[in-house]
Amino acid sequence: MDAVQAANSGHPGMPMGMADVATVLWSQFLKFDPAAPKWPDRDRFVLSAGHGSMLIYAALHLSGYAAPTMDDIRNFRQMGSPCAGHPENDMLEGVECTTGPLGQGLAMAVGMAMAERHLNATFGDDLVDHKTWVIAGDGCLMEGVNHEAVGLAGTLKLGRLNVLWDDNKITIDGDTALSTSEDILARYDASGWHTASCDGHDFADIARALAEAAADPRPSLVACRTVIGKGAPNKQGGHSVHGAPLGADEIAAARAFLGWTSAPFEVPAETLTNWRSTGEAGKAAHAAWTARLEASSARADFGSRLAGVAELASPALESYIRGLVAAPQKVASRKASEMALGPLTEQLPQLVGGSADLTGSVFTRTKFTPQFSADAYDGRHVAYGIREFGMAAAMNGMALHGGVVPYGGTFLVFSDYCRNAMRMSALQHAQVVYVMTHDSIGLGEDGPTHQPVEHVMSLRLIPNLNVYRPADVIETAECWALALETTHTPSVLSLSRQNLPQLRGAGDESWTRETNRSAKGAYRLVAASAPRKVVVMASGSEVMLAVDVAKALEAQGIGADVVSVPCWELFDAQDAAYRADILPSDVLKVSIEAGVTTGWQKYVGDGITVGIDSFGASAPANVLYDHFGLTADKILPRVLARLS
Amino acid sequence: MDAVQAANSGHPGMPMGMADVATVLWSQFLKFDPAAPKWPDRDRFVLSAGHGSMLIYAALHLSGYAAPTMDDIRNFRQMGSPCAGHPENDMLEGVECTTGPLGQGLAMAVGMAMAERHLNATFGDDLVDHKTWVIAGDGCLMEGVNHEAVGLAGTLKLGRLNVLWDDNKITIDGDTALSTSEDILARYDASGWHTASCDGHDFADIARALAEAAADPRPSLVACRTVIGKGAPNKQGGHSVHGAPLGADEIAAARAFLGWTSAPFEVPAETLTNWRSTGEAGKAAHAAWTARLEASSARADFGSRLAGVAELASPALESYIRGLVAAPQKVASRKASEMALGPLTEQLPQLVGGSADLTGSVFTRTKFTPQFSADAYDGRHVAYGIREFGMAAAMNGMALHGGVVPYGGTFLVFSDYCRNAMRMSALQHAQVVYVMTHDSIGLGEDGPTHQPVEHVMSLRLIPNLNVYRPADVIETAECWALALETTHTPSVLSLSRQNLPQLRGAGDESWTRETNRSAKGAYRLVAASAPRKVVVMASGSEVMLAVDVAKALEAQGIGADVVSVPCWELFDAQDAAYRADILPSDVLKVSIEAGVTTGWQKYVGDGITVGIDSFGASAPANVLYDHFGLTADKILPRVLARLS
Repeated sequence: MDAVQAANSGHPGMPMGMADVATVLWSQFLKFDPAAPKWPDRDRFVLSAGHGSMLIYAALHLSGYAAPTMDDIRNFRQMGSPCAGHPENDMLEGVECTTGPLGQGLAMAVGMAMAERHLNATFGDDLVDHKTWVIAGDGCLMEGVNHEAVGLAGTLKLGRLNVLWDDNKITIDGDTALSTSEDILARYDASGWHTASCDGHDFADIARALAEAAADPRPSLVACRTVIGKGAPNKQGGHSVHGAPLGADEIAAARAFLGWTSAPFEVPAETLTNWRSTGEAGKAAHAAWTARLEASSARADFGSRLAGVAELASPALESYIRGLVAAPQKVASRKASEMALGPLTEQLPQLVGGSADLTGSVFTRTKFTPQFSADAYDGRHVAYGIREFGMAAAMNGMALHGGVVPYGGTFLVFSDYCRNAMRMSALQHAQVVYVMTHDSIGLGEDGPTHQPVEHVMSLRLIPNLNVYRPADVIETAECWALALETTHTPSVLSLSRQNLPQLRGAGDESWTRETNRSAKGAYRLVAASAPRKVVVMASGSEVMLAVDVAKALEAQGIGADVVSVPCWELFDAQDAAYRADILPSDVLKVSIEAGVTTGWQKYVGDGITVGIDSFGASAPANVLYDHFGLTADKILPRVLARLS
Repeated sequence: MDAVQAANSGHPGMPMGMADVATVLWSQFLKFDPAAPKWPDRDRFVLSAGHGSMLIYAALHLSGYAAPTMDDIRNFRQMGSPCAGHPENDMLEGVECTTGPLGQGLAMAVGMAMAERHLNATFGDDLVDHKTWVIAGDGCLMEGVNHEAVGLAGTLKLGRLNVLWDDNKITIDGDTALSTSEDILARYDASGWHTASCDGHDFADIARALAEAAADPRPSLVACRTVIGKGAPNKQGGHSVHGAPLGADEIAAARAFLGWTSAPFEVPAETLTNWRSTGEAGKAAHAAWTARLEASSARADFGSRLAGVAELASPALESYIRGLVAAPQKVASRKASEMALGPLTEQLPQLVGGSADLTGSVFTRTKFTPQFSADAYDGRHVAYGIREFGMAAAMNGMALHGGVVPYGGTFLVFSDYCRNAMRMSALQHAQVVYVMTHDSIGLGEDGPTHQPVEHVMSLRLIPNLNVYRPADVIETAECWALALETTHTPSVLSLSRQNLPQLRGAGDESWTRETNRSAKGAYRLVAASAPRKVVVMASGSEVMLAVDVAKALEAQGIGADVVSVPCWELFDAQDAAYRADILPSDVLKVSIEAGVTTGWQKYVGDGITVGIDSFGASAPANVLYDHFGLTADKILPRVLARLS
């Protein structure tokens, strides 16, 4: 309450209401070693109700983590303090993931629990045997993503996942009855979960319920009946305590009510000593685990599993890509993705794929990735169900857990369904690869509900998210390599439904990581023959169109470069000289992409942007490309008119 | 099966599997008059599993709607045919909403059922008394949005909503058990629904279950146990029949199996006669309803309620806006929105607001909008709960139902949670107003999870969606007027948490619809005094900053216009002369917006784009604005450097 008051903003209600539950969890159940916050076999704790951030900051400080310090807590919600308004995973060890967008913490925890079981299936109980604990509020349990996560966890029988529900009957707007009449325990029951209840202010009862949850082979939900803002005598139990400071008067009243005599930001010695001891059991467990690891024949494997795939991806693709030079392939880039995944999934056991019930369309599964299921946690392809948001959030959890590099697929248009989880991948620096296919009107007959128009560009706007739109089978492999080499940035692969000719090959006979042309984000695929007047730039399925336009220009004696632009973010990271060489100022620049044109002005200036600024339509792909002016025949006159 | 075969793409499985259920629904339950598809008191039918579009096309044709014709059906999925890959509401009467993105049809149906009850509360059973029927598949029932919709419908006790679940145990990837173990009936029970089951191929059993559903005062889910692709003897019951043509051989086998001797696209006379009779009861009900309407004292009110608000919005705001000239207000634009909603909700009974549990932050409720609830369907403010996607989809349903103009609020960053429903507003031409507040780093301490950076720009990329970012209290009212006058385009109001000075007033003393300066999307707020060298353009909370920058330039003798840009889409619709006047080619153009810069190059060319191309941070707003370079002191040197 003091930190929220000092910040003059924040949420005192949840931390005060759940303090008792957190105390029992920390002191009797949570396996952690404050001196080794990244110990791989620690329990994971996720504060899904992220607005109650002071709860985790307090617990981390009290239990002896190096950070946050009391000064950090004094500076709660101030620039530079790791005690941000909502917990951020990159700011504090012990904060396993960034939370705040409701429901997603729980859904990420499902991914962590999946990663745990997957690694356990390979390395056994000696090395991997931990639980995932979640504190979630009523908001988390109303969001659609939690329902998706709960359904997935029930199906996968993730018994080591335990969710502690802050059952305080209050949301921001008032009583929960305003907006929900759900019997939450019955709903979790219906999804294959174990459920229990406790008085969230009775230590013994909390411990009983948590022990039941820990013991049950199903994922568990524990309803912790609490009073929001407990201890603030005049405000507790009401919605005014949810998201605003208590105020000086109520804080004084709470001190009197609780018999709390210490000054703000002072912790009595006995309390601190007690709290510091909560890590003792974890410390001992950590030591025993370390001994087991050192004695284990799997030690090296375990280490390399955790080390990730960054160094391994390009070597795994070398012979495959070189082979394409000799035997060019005209395939859809979604198919090219499957082809690249062949050697990648064969050689990189960290890769765990999946799709939101579109496996046969997004081509995420290879012969090296058997089904992941409750009966086969060693499987490597997850049937996420028709749950895009749940899938994306679970992948964030898997990536943040470590030992797994997740990728998952759906149609690009349904990136809308999981968009905030994609943003959370980026914000958390989580290495997740989104395989997004059917990436334009090129999908044809399914029509405008299924045709992305604005999606590629809108994803480019998310900071720290690399959006790849490869032009052919080789670029697709290159983009996969880059995505797997980029450990702190998630990637989107925007892939075509329709076949694309192989445009690359010359110069790729000895392909290596160093010759990956996509790595610069944009590059000159074809240099002008005649004196250069035009640069035609394009991405993905429209690069072949750019080649055609350039050819037609050259046929008229007008020199035209073709620039392939697989990744804006990487191109923007190049130095000015490279960018100016690729996009010189003294030519007409033309962009072609089967999507909205807004944004391309950044590269073409007052040149020509060819694209689609309306919704698509239901018809065969070639009919649509013609209808929307995306043919060389229709683009050429526009270029000629401008040149004249 | 013939239409899918002819198109060589599409989904035969659901239409064949649910044909029996649809036959019973159409012939015994659905209230419709094919000669008057827009009759306000018709039952609404929503094919939430939109990929089964051939089912509704067949039913509409057979039951005697003017369209689709058999030729339309022959041209299923071809350019120009109203029989698009997924049903589109603007292409066929009888298609109440566009479906395909799973779960949203069901969620829109919840909104339709809400609108029905709301109008019933005002106009009584004589004028408004109809049901909403939904066919949903396993996909719909896995998506998070359906869970949100189900929770809302249960809480609101929408007993006239009946969902027929195509319980065929099959998804695209295979058996539903691959990805779900949910006891769906138990889950609906837990949400306050009535549930029933039937054999989906036994007419009597279907009729029994639908009658139970129709009679129960709770919303109903009927599990219709079906065989996907029923009638295709070798493929039925398997996932291969879900989304691909049966093939000529299997079609021939199905004809033999079913004893079907008619040629493709030919309907036997007896069948057609029987189907044409399914509208008789509805026709009679329509006639009786018309007689009641003509005799009703509420006839005029009913007509004006359905006529919408386009003509009424500006007049309702006139005296309020004029009053602001004399008494300027420095308020957050979220507060300005609440102020504008005062006279609007007082005078326009069609407006029904709501929020996703942020009412006290997004300021959507006025004293004229009491709570809408199961006990008070005449209420006008919905507690949607922490369900952004469900809220947005429900608003689409309300708008498409008619008689209601819905608006709803959440934080702008959570537009990510409901983004596809916003897209569906645009695609369906549904007049929905999204009140999206806390629209930048200006929200301060809540940090990057809550700070939109890319959202304003990314929403601008959605076709047919007007994104308004007003600069002050008067622009906010103007944008509200425009949103309510735009009947075929949804609107987003992007509103600040922080206070904004009133910049407008001069010239607004006699404000009318005709003097609405925001209507042109961008306009010259301040004209240069010194010879013009610079145009500083900005939106929303950064317009005051643009004014400061211009003042600083003028102080150095450098003439600078200030252009306020409340709405890109409206500005782009102006003629070239107007646009050139506002953004002349011979000056340095500078854009300022607290969001990503990509996109602004469209207006500033090679000028300066001031913005934020990274995530935000947790700190007070003024600290953040300074940190990210969004102060006049930090922008001025950038402009001067370029000028020199």
